Formats: sequence, structure tokens, C-alpha cells
Amino acid sequence: MFFEGSEKKIELAVGPQLGSLRAFGRPFWTQMVSAANAEIISHISNEQCDAYLLSESSLFVWDDRFLMLTCGTTTLIDAAELFVQTYGIDCIEFFSYQRKNEYQSHLQKTSVDEDLARLRQLMPLKAYQLGYLDSHHQYLFHLDKPFAPGPANITSEFLMYDIGPMAADYLRCSNQSLDGVRQLLDLETLLPGFRFDDFLFDPCGYSMNAINGEHYATIHITPEQHSSYISFDTNLDLGGEHSHIVEKLLDRLQPGSWDTLGFNCQPQTPQRDNYLAIGQCELSLSCGFMMDFAHHQDTRQNQLPIKEL
Amino acid sequence: MFFEGSEKKIELAVGPQLGSLRAFGRPFWTQMVSAANAEIISHISNEQCDAYLLSESSLFVWDDRFLMLTCGTTTLIDAAELFVQTYGIDCIEFFSYQRKNEYQSHLQKTSVDEDLARLRQLMPLKAYQLGYLDSHHQYLFHLDKPFAPGPANITSEFLMYDIGPMAADYLRCSNQSLDGVRQLLDLETLLPGFRFDDFLFDPCGYSMNAINGEHYATIHITPEQHSSYISFDTNLDLGGEHSHIVEKLLDRLQPGSWDTLGFNCQPQTPQRDNYLAIGQCELSLSCGFMMDFAHHQDTRQNQLPIKEL
Repeated sequence: MFFEGSEKKIELAVGPQLGSLRAFGRPFWTQMVSAANAEIISHISNEQCDAYLLSESSLFVWDDRFLMLTCGTTTLIDAAELFVQTYGIDCIEFFSYQRKNEYQSHLQKTSVDEDLARLRQLMPLKAYQLGYLDSHHQYLFHLDKPFAPGPANITSEFLMYDIGPMAADYLRCSNQSLDGVRQLLDLETLLPGFRFDDFLFDPCGYSMNAINGEHYATIHITPEQHSSYISFDTNLDLGGEHSHIVEKLLDRLQPGSWDTLGFNCQPQTPQRDNYLAIGQCELSLSCGFMMDFAHHQDTRQNQLPIKEL
Repeated sequence: MFFEGSEKKIELAVGPQLGSLRAFGRPFWTQMVSAANAEIISHISNEQCDAYLLSESSLFVWDDRFLMLTCGTTTLIDAAELFVQTYGIDCIEFFSYQRKNEYQSHLQKTSVDEDLARLRQLMPLKAYQLGYLDSHHQYLFHLDKPFAPGPANITSEFLMYDIGPMAADYLRCSNQSLDGVRQLLDLETLLPGFRFDDFLFDPCGYSMNAINGEHYATIHITPEQHSSYISFDTNLDLGGEHSHIVEKLLDRLQPGSWDTLGFNCQPQTPQRDNYLAIGQCELSLSCGFMMDFAHHQDTRQNQLPIKEL
């Protein structure tokens, strides 16, 4: 059984002329989510943010922006088109579309090139591929329009591959529980003060949204053997005040390799003899963000897996 | 511009009841090559082997076996089907089908799963995936039938990714020549006593077949920026007598990462401070071969490329 954990992601900020995005209400966001071929399965809110847990990943809506993250074979591009075609381009202050390299790109409904061509019909875009094609790499397309992100407007992404056997065995076992996964991740210590909303999929897989004021964090776990993957996405600074989160998750999950991405922050991998920086790059974007991408490996995991098909 | 350098490969050995495969003649082999959506562009022979250079890679035919290697978006699976459907399974002593992980698998005409399903219609198969899905990996399917390869029946593969700038710049320049590429690869020193047949593609790309008695070697170069790839495939022992070939090609081509594969041999990467063994595995096959797969990286190439799309 294969499930594509790698995510596609939209971030979009609007000007005041559109009113509050949260006031668009559940029917609109349900429509956005179904355009992407996903479903809303759960929902939490606070004064600043509505956080939807989806059948494939997450949607966070603030008054002036939203973030939508989907995995599997979802068609996030259709949701992007729906929004832009409904409200026009003039109200959009910032738009980015990110797509991680997939494990099995031939199973996707659209290719990266097709997504890029469709977005270029809608708006002036800058588009980049970061990293080698034969290794972990990222695609980032953004609206080519000046934008001035505030100091708190940062994003950190921490993507872990090939989870160590102890954590992976638990995440794949048939009698796991929400409490067990929370304990494995040590969520309460990791994200103090956050409100959590999480879900266990059948036969396996775990998703979690967390919000605290305007802060969010989301974790998605695809524990399938030979293609295990865990993503952590947040607007906390994993390069500064919250860099202990990276260290803690590395210790708990023991991934064989991991990527870090930062937008106006630089998530830090702690220095250890067995952690090797495979590659790194930085890119200054015309939309006001400095993007940082790094790929690391745990050099102890030298034995390659063999899978009988 | 993107060209998929990663190869698919068939090796097939027949029993004496079929007579000599070489005696099947050019029309049969032309038909096999066109089944795969490729063309024969050139041909050399010696007493033991016919070596065809193809529009996408190579075909070597001996009396009792053949080896066919194709890249791009060729459909090698169709050639495999054609052979088995024409001559039946009883005359086949050994069959293997190998497919390297592709850079852009969604551009391929068939997926690995589809190829496997089609081959399983034709014969009892063992099938394996070696390596992590999110990194370099290999698929190997073989006829599940006892086979006793002789001591000279070995295969070494050496696959280089992200060629260093000096070699890559030359291989992409518009005024390169066959002599220039031969000199870059230092072919005469690398393969003394071999007869060569090589070809430069337009706008870039290089293929070379070489034969010497029953020995063969073949090199295929896809120099495209951001997805450069060079494969070296041979029945010389890159783990023993001919291990200097690996060292020499590493020095000349300075790849960022490389894979070695051996069937009844273990191609050796020389020990150097900047060469890191990312992973390795060994697999004993029911068809009499010990398969070895290793993935290495040059840790000096730490700066990830950024490509504007």
C-alpha cells in the first residue's frame, strides 16, 4: 500500500477590500476543500484563526490570509483556481504555491509543469525549483507582486523521511491511540498553550492541527513502511526561539533524512556527529521573503531497505 | 529541456534449442528495438558479440543472451513482451528486468507497477525494490528459475548524477566533438583493446558502445543542466581487476552522487574523505546472482542548485 505523504501548499493573503476571509463561512471553505478533492473532518477556532483538519491535511483561515496544505493525490491547483477565479487577482496581496517532490509523481493527477502553466494563466508568477531533481527538491511559485511581510510573518517547515523503527512500529501498529501518538510526539511539551485537534486514519496515518493566538502548527504522519514521512509546518520560528522543536522531533522520530524550509527564518538542525548537511540553498523572493532550504541525513542509517514486490 | 537519462534494462539468456540469437539477424533486432520505441543508429561486431547503438541507449547480442538498455520515455516492456510472446518461456534460462528510479516518472509511458503486472502475465517472477523511495532506488524483476551463472557472468553498473561543472560545461557546449568526449572520458586508457562505436546527439548527449571478445562496456551521457546523468554498464569487474575505472571516472566527471550495482561482483568506490557511503544493501537472488547496490555522495557539493522555471 502506498500513500503520497508529500504535500502541496497554498498561502494567500488578501487586501481589506474583501472583508474577513473567516466571514466567508463554512460553505465557502467546504467548496474550496472539495475542489481539491478532500473533505473537512474536524474544526477548531480561536479569536484569530479557524483550523480545519482535512481528509488529506489541513486548512487554516485568518481574517486576511489562508494556508491550505494537501497530500495524497489531491488537486490543490483546482482550489487555487477556484479562489482566484471567484475573487479576482486584484484583491490578492500575496500568493504562493509550493509542491514538494513526490515519491510517485506518476500517480498525481497533475504534474508540476501543468500546475505552473495553469497558474500562469491566472497571474504573473515567479517559479523556482530548489535542489537536485534526483534528490529531495521543492517547487515554489509565487505571485510576482511586491509584498512586505511583517516580522511575525514567517513559516518553518520540517519534513522527516524514513522514520526510525521504534516510532514507525508504533505508528503502524493496529492498537495505537490518539493519546499514544500525542505522547510519542510529546505534543504538550512541544507546543505549550496550544489547542489541539487530531485524528487517526484507518488503517494508519495521523493528522494534527494546533492553534494558539495567531500561531499554528500542523503535523501529518504517513507511516507506511518503505515510504514513511512526517511533516511539521508552523509559523513558529524553528530557527530561533523554537529550534528545540527540531531537536526534540529528531530524537523522538529518528528520521533517516529530513528537509527544513524557512520563509524569513532559518530552521536549525542541531550539530551532531551523525547529522550530515547534504545540501543547502537560499533564495531571495520578489514577494519579500528570504527562502531557505536544507537537506540533512543521519549517517548511521546506512543499510538500504529491500522490499519484495 | 528535460531528458530522462535513467535506464530500463533487460538481460535474457536462452537455452540451445533456440540456436544463436545473433543468427536471428538484423530484421528481428530492428523489430525488438522499435517495439521499445527506439531506433538502431549504428552497429559494430566481433566474433562473439553484435553491439547496436540505439537512439536511446544500447543493445548487445551474443549467441546465447542479449542485453538491452533504453532510456528516455522508451517502452522496453513492449520489447520484453515481444520476445517472450514470440519464443515462449521454455527456451528462456534467465531473464531480468531492471528499472532505475526516474527523475520524472510521470512522463513515462508505463509505471513500474504496470511493467511488473505485465511481466507477471508472462512468467513466474521475483520482484524487488532496493533503496528508499525518497532517494535513489532500483527495481529488479527476474524469472524465478534456478540458473547457474558462470564465473565470468557478472555485471557492473556505475551511475553518476550531477556531473561536476568542468565536464558538464564541455558536454553541453555546442562545439564538442566525438574526439573531445573520448578524451574527456579517456576511453583508450579506460578500456584498452576495446573497439568503440560512439555518437553525439543534437543538441547534446553522447552514447558509446565498446566490445572486446565477450566483454562489453557502454556509456550514456545526459548532460542537461539540473539533471545531468552518466551511466557506465559493463561485464568487466568494477569491484576487482577493473576498479580503477570507477576511480578514474569519478576524478574526470566529479559527480555529486553516484550509485554502484553489481551482479556477482561488488563495484568499489575508493576511500576518500569527501566520499560518503549514503547506503548499501545486498540481495541473494534465486537466479544465482548476488546483487549489490550502494549509493555514495561527494560531500563537497553542498550548495543546492536553484532553477528558475
